[in-house]
Formats: sequence, C-alpha cells, structure tokens
Amino acid sequence: MSEKNYRFIDACWRKPVDYTPIWIMRQAGRYMKEYQDIRNKVSFLELCKTPELAAEVTILPIDKLGVDAAILFSDILIPVEAMGMNLEFGDGGPHLGSPVKNKSDVDRLIVPSPQEKVPFVMETIKLLRKELDGRVPLIGFSGAPFTLASYMVEGGGTSSFVKIKTMMFKDPETIHALLNKVAKTVICYLNAQIEAGAQAVQIFDSWAGTLSPRDYQEFALSYTKQVIDGLNRENIPVIYFVQGNPGVLELVKQAGSDVIGVDWRINLDVAWNRVGYDVAVQGNLEPCALFLPKDKLEERAKEILNQAGGRPGHIFNLGHGILPQATVENAKFLVEAVHKFRIQNTEDRTQTRE
Amino acid sequence: MSEKNYRFIDACWRKPVDYTPIWIMRQAGRYMKEYQDIRNKVSFLELCKTPELAAEVTILPIDKLGVDAAILFSDILIPVEAMGMNLEFGDGGPHLGSPVKNKSDVDRLIVPSPQEKVPFVMETIKLLRKELDGRVPLIGFSGAPFTLASYMVEGGGTSSFVKIKTMMFKDPETIHALLNKVAKTVICYLNAQIEAGAQAVQIFDSWAGTLSPRDYQEFALSYTKQVIDGLNRENIPVIYFVQGNPGVLELVKQAGSDVIGVDWRINLDVAWNRVGYDVAVQGNLEPCALFLPKDKLEERAKEILNQAGGRPGHIFNLGHGILPQATVENAKFLVEAVHKFRIQNTEDRTQTRE
Repeated sequence: MSEKNYRFIDACWRKPVDYTPIWIMRQAGRYMKEYQDIRNKVSFLELCKTPELAAEVTILPIDKLGVDAAILFSDILIPVEAMGMNLEFGDGGPHLGSPVKNKSDVDRLIVPSPQEKVPFVMETIKLLRKELDGRVPLIGFSGAPFTLASYMVEGGGTSSFVKIKTMMFKDPETIHALLNKVAKTVICYLNAQIEAGAQAVQIFDSWAGTLSPRDYQEFALSYTKQVIDGLNRENIPVIYFVQGNPGVLELVKQAGSDVIGVDWRINLDVAWNRVGYDVAVQGNLEPCALFLPKDKLEERAKEILNQAGGRPGHIFNLGHGILPQATVENAKFLVEAVHKFRIQNTEDRTQTRE
Repeated sequence: MSEKNYRFIDACWRKPVDYTPIWIMRQAGRYMKEYQDIRNKVSFLELCKTPELAAEVTILPIDKLGVDAAILFSDILIPVEAMGMNLEFGDGGPHLGSPVKNKSDVDRLIVPSPQEKVPFVMETIKLLRKELDGRVPLIGFSGAPFTLASYMVEGGGTSSFVKIKTMMFKDPETIHALLNKVAKTVICYLNAQIEAGAQAVQIFDSWAGTLSPRDYQEFALSYTKQVIDGLNRENIPVIYFVQGNPGVLELVKQAGSDVIGVDWRINLDVAWNRVGYDVAVQGNLEPCALFLPKDKLEERAKEILNQAGGRPGHIFNLGHGILPQATVENAKFLVEAVHKFRIQNTEDRTQTRE
C-alpha cells in the first residue's frame, strides 16, 4: 500500500499513463457507512471544521474504492461563511442568513484571510499530506465565483435562479461588485490550499449551466478566469468543472484550466473534440449509472474509455457527484473496471503495433 | 383586428414571412393580472377543465401582447390524470398520488380515450377556433413520453430524477412498459386535439435534459419519435422542445419534427447549424432577460434575430416559460421589438440587392 501513484497528476498534464486514473466527485459521502457513522456523531459543519475528522473521511474512498486521487473533504460554502455570512445546514440543504440584496450588503462582506478565518482547511490539508504519504495526490477545491455568488444571493439552493438573474439584469453594478469580491476570496483561498500542500485544485461551477452563452461569459467565465490567472499554479494542475450546459464548452476552455470537467449530458468524444486536445478532460459517467447491474455498468465505463480513445489526458470521473443511493460495491467495481480496461487497451494497441 | 395572421404557420414550414413571428411559452400565466383575477375565483384544475375560462385565458396574450400564435391553456399532466392517476396542485406544484413503482402499477393504467376522459380539452379548442376566427393560429400541446413518465414515477417535480433513473437502470422492463403506454396516450391525445382544430402541436420534453445522449436515445427520443410518427400531421406542423441540454440537439432532430425548440443555453446560430437548415427552429431568449431595461432587452432580441440571419424558418420565443416575475409591459415590448426589427432587416436586405 506504499506505492506512489501519480497517474492522476500525469493525466492532468496529458502525460501517458499505464491505466486511466479515476476519482469520484463527492467520493467521501453519504453512500458510505463509515461516513454516516461519523456524521451520526458530529454535525456536517463540525466535520468540515475538525481536521482529524475531515482527513479521516477524505481518506475513506482511497482505502475502500482504490481511487487515484483524494479530494479535500469540505463544503463549498466554507469561504462564503468566512466572508461574513451566516451558514446553517438543514434538511433542505445549506441556508445562508441575510442573503445579499444590494451594494451595501456586498460592501459589508470581507475578503477573508484563509489563515485567520478558515485555518482548519489548511490544517486538514497538512494532515492529509502526511497521512497519505504520497499514495495518491490530494486535490483542493473551491466553488467558482458565479456559483458561490448564486448561493449568496439566493440564500441557498434554487432551481430557478430568479434572484441572482434579477440582480444580473436589474442591478449589474451590485452583482459585479459581489463577483469581484468572491473572486478575490477564491484566489486567496485556493492559494492557501496550494501553499498548505494541495497538489491540484478543482473549481466547481455547479450552477453556471443555468446561463446563456453571453451571460456565462460576463458573469461566470470572466471571474473564473480571474481566479485561475491569480493562482500560484506552477506544477499545480487546475481543473474547471461547469455542470449543466454542454452548450458553453468551447467558452469554458477560455478560462485557461489544465483540465476541463465534462458532465454526462454530452458524449466525451464530442466534448473533447469541441474543447480541443491541448487540454485534458475529466468525466463523465451519468451518476445514476451506478444503479446498473455490474455488466451494464462496465459496458458504460468502457464506452467512455473508448470515447477517450486511449489519448493521454483523460481522468475518469462521474459527470456529477455520487448520489447517497449508490453502493460502495458498485463504486469499487467501477474503479476496478476502469483500471482493468485501460491495461487491456494498452495491450491491444501494443499487439497492433507488432 | 380581423387580419388573418399565418406568419407562425408559414415560419414552421420555413416559408418567407414579412417579420419573424413570436409567441411565448406560458404566455397565459401568473405574470398577467387578468389571469390572476380568474385564478382567484377558480382552482388551477377547474380553470383547465372549464372550456370558457380556458379559452378566455388562452386569448389574453393575443390581445395584450400581440403574439402571433395562441397556445391551448391546459396542464401537461391532464392526460396523466386521465390514465388513472390522482392529480393535485399544492404550493410545491403538481402532486401525483401513488407514483408508479412497478410493472403492476403500469398495468393498472389505461390508455384513455380523449373524447371520453378529457372532452373539455377538445371543447376548449373548438371554442378557441371560433373565438380566434383566424386572427392567429392555435397550437395544441402535450408533454413528451419521458417527461410525463418522470412525473408519474417521481410523483411530482424533482431536481435529481433519482426515482425514474433508478427504474431505468434497475427495472428497464417496467419503464419501457410505462413509456409505451404513455406514448400511445400522447398519440391519441394530440390526434384528438388536431381533429378538434389545433393548427400545430408542440411536444414538451421539459425533463429530457437530465439524460445522457445514450439514455436520451433509449428513453426519450425513441418514444417521442413513436408519437410523431403516429400523428395525423398533414398540414399540421409539429414542434419538439427539449429543455436543458444542448448536448443532444443533433439527436433531437431524429424525432422528425418540423420545428425544433431551442433553449437559451446555446446560441441560436450554433444550434441551427447543428440541427441543420432543413428544419425550422424556435427560441431562444433567456426568460429572465425580460427583467432587463428595455434598451438591453431589445439588444438581446436583435442579437437572436441576427443569429437567425433572416433565414426563413425562425419562430421567436423564450428559451423556457415566462416567469411570474416578468411584466406584461416588457413582454409586450419584446413582441413589438421582434416585429419591428424584422421589417428593418428585410428593408436592409432589399437595399443590399438594389
């Protein structure tokens, strides 16, 4: 178990690897009994803010599933709370007290020093680097400015995005002031994670899929680009994942990340062709495919690997987070199927060359 | 007001028109005071089932906004109720009692005779044709099989679609039996609307955007195609609208509709280029753009009209239903802007030819 596995990092840089690395968004989550046992003892926020526990759940899927990367266990809204908003979790998901309504609400928010306001995140990362000891790389992460701003204006999750879009269209000054402040926060937050030892970072734009191409450019892309430009990214691959709209993939590329996350609504070969082969891609199994019987699940994994075509620069993942209804058994089977298939594929290609 | 306006039908057939016709999804809705006044007196389902009232609200946007087509006021779940499910409306939207869980639930459902089970729909259409008297064409509509089946399995709205996807992946026999029965129902339902006088029909696949391309083909496209193939569509243009995923546009074309609805997540020129110019397109303004000041709203309308490029076969619409927060004033302004711009555009082109 002391093998040093850098396949994930190599794939981010589009270097050849002996099999396709895989990790799973939300791989430390409710579908795991061990995670639930811990959550039965502490609240979600307490778990995020206790380095020993956050590190423990981060490592669970490395041991249980055999994935090729660990991702920091935390919540996307941790930096938002640090900006000065009140964060609570109920049955309906996250709730932010006093949502941002106008310019003076934005002015009251701070650009927090991560070391002062969220030291537990960096402590978790340091602890993880020690405990992982090079077995697999550690990914840090943050929400993208548009996605975080959506939560801040809507006050929680939404399906209509009417509040943030009303602000975008009726009060552009306020939304741009907010997005600027969030972008600065995300830059500091991710740089602090990198300094603490994160070996790659992923930026989640989970809600940007609700935007038209022109609004995506103005309200999401430009701020994510600002974030990526501000990162101390030497030797640190940056992954940018926009969920919910294959219609803006060509624009997503312009943010300048090393890897582009692809959701399940488009075939991976079509997506990679659209963004170009000078960038790595990550994805994109339909999360509910984990409900399939194993033979069908394996068929789908192979289909995606075939679409990637053995080209260097593919990291296998789901097209969105793993669902609580998934089983550890099938998640583990998927990891093994991806690892196994790629070896056969390499052998096939070797044989072809003979 | 007795002008006969067939621009919408002409555009569906990709015939040249003097200006781009426009109608607005959910154009008879909560954003209108007159609609709310009626809804204060009767329940939503009562409104759907009372031909005089349903016809009255259907005509409201023709008078108030000047749109180029009327669309039957009804609910997407009316045929589902007729299949034998219990339908109620609460604050959280529609609720279907005893959602479909297994094959015997499917077996209990009927393929209803529209004349017997939902005669009020056909009466509304007949009344409307009389009252409209050719001023604008009347569009009938139905949900697509996948979208209706989603409601039937989930029991109402959902954002995760876990129940229907679980059925798709764990119990394909049941979901295919359900989709077959729903497709048969939709064929009868739309043919009855056509017989009663609907001059075009739109099939709404509002939830198919949650599917990967392969699942879209198996669980949505094939059944919508079955519906379209089963329609008595001579002289009746068929519009097919998939919401939420520009990643399957090329597949949407395979259903064989005359017009493809395009949501706002992709530029109209890109979308039309992908589906091909041998089909008409409808769309695709971001619904929240109605919150913009008029000059910006007009700019967006022009942008879409420019993307359509004056090519015959474009029907202007929003990329999804109009929101309750929109104003009649801005909706009317949009209709006028679309009508006005196209005339200028035609003049420009005439001048270029001289």
